Amino acid sequence: MLAIAYEEAVRGGAEGGVPIGAALFHHDGTLLGRGRNRRIQDDDPSTHAETAAFRAAGRRPHYRDTTMVTTLSPCWYCSGLVRQFGISRLVIGESRTFHGGHDWLAGLGVEVTVLDDEACTDLLAGFVSAAPELWFEDIGGPPGEAQSAVRRSP
Amino acid sequence: MLAIAYEEAVRGGAEGGVPIGAALFHHDGTLLGRGRNRRIQDDDPSTHAETAAFRAAGRRPHYRDTTMVTTLSPCWYCSGLVRQFGISRLVIGESRTFHGGHDWLAGLGVEVTVLDDEACTDLLAGFVSAAPELWFEDIGGPPGEAQSAVRRSP
Repeated sequence: MLAIAYEEAVRGGAEGGVPIGAALFHHDGTLLGRGRNRRIQDDDPSTHAETAAFRAAGRRPHYRDTTMVTTLSPCWYCSGLVRQFGISRLVIGESRTFHGGHDWLAGLGVEVTVLDDEACTDLLAGFVSAAPELWFEDIGGPPGEAQSAVRRSP
Repeated sequence: MLAIAYEEAVRGGAEGGVPIGAALFHHDGTLLGRGRNRRIQDDDPSTHAETAAFRAAGRRPHYRDTTMVTTLSPCWYCSGLVRQFGISRLVIGESRTFHGGHDWLAGLGVEVTVLDDEACTDLLAGFVSAAPELWFEDIGGPPGEAQSAVRRSP
């Protein structure tokens, strides 16, 4: 399942975008939707890999029997997506480059698997070191800054 | 500011959609983007009011100086958006029809204002009683079901 998410990430990188990919599967193995981060390609900050895969999967009465597969630990935005829609399994390529909300989801009962995949790590780490400003834009600022800025707010 | 979000919600309702609207403002009062839930209109489960307003606001290096205004307490997906991008203020029309993640955000330092606006409540409550199946689809199942389904998952 990670191979499809990784393929999306590679495609995104080849387009000059943030190389993160995702795919949503039914528990029976059927691919429901796949997608990649499209911030740069579409000038759209709302399209992370997971939201793209979720959109591609289309409308369903519920998502309890689905697995979200993503090349990177989901940010809070995408972790919130998993929680709200009751996606019950989450498979993550790597969480070294960025550690999002997957511990929170595991604590809520989502079945989380972190694969520590080297190809996923290398792909994103290469992008982050080549274009840190685009990477930080994608996650709302340098690590911890968004949250600490919130705390500093009057 | 709520007037613009409410106008979006009314427009969404008139289109046959889920009547929830949102707008993103700079702290200086400038409107950056506005939008409404488009699940039904675009057959797109990923477009909640807040994500539509965020997308319309476009790419910014950060969102620390912005306020998200929404007619309804943001679901976990949209609460995650607020957290990840460091949106520092949140103004909510009502939280009677649905209580999302705004307490969580307040605990993280986001400045949250709940207005308990009757017009927002009436608009959405009318939709929920007329089309409960569409409403439940929009939030991933009847209240609590998505989460408890996650907990039941093997």
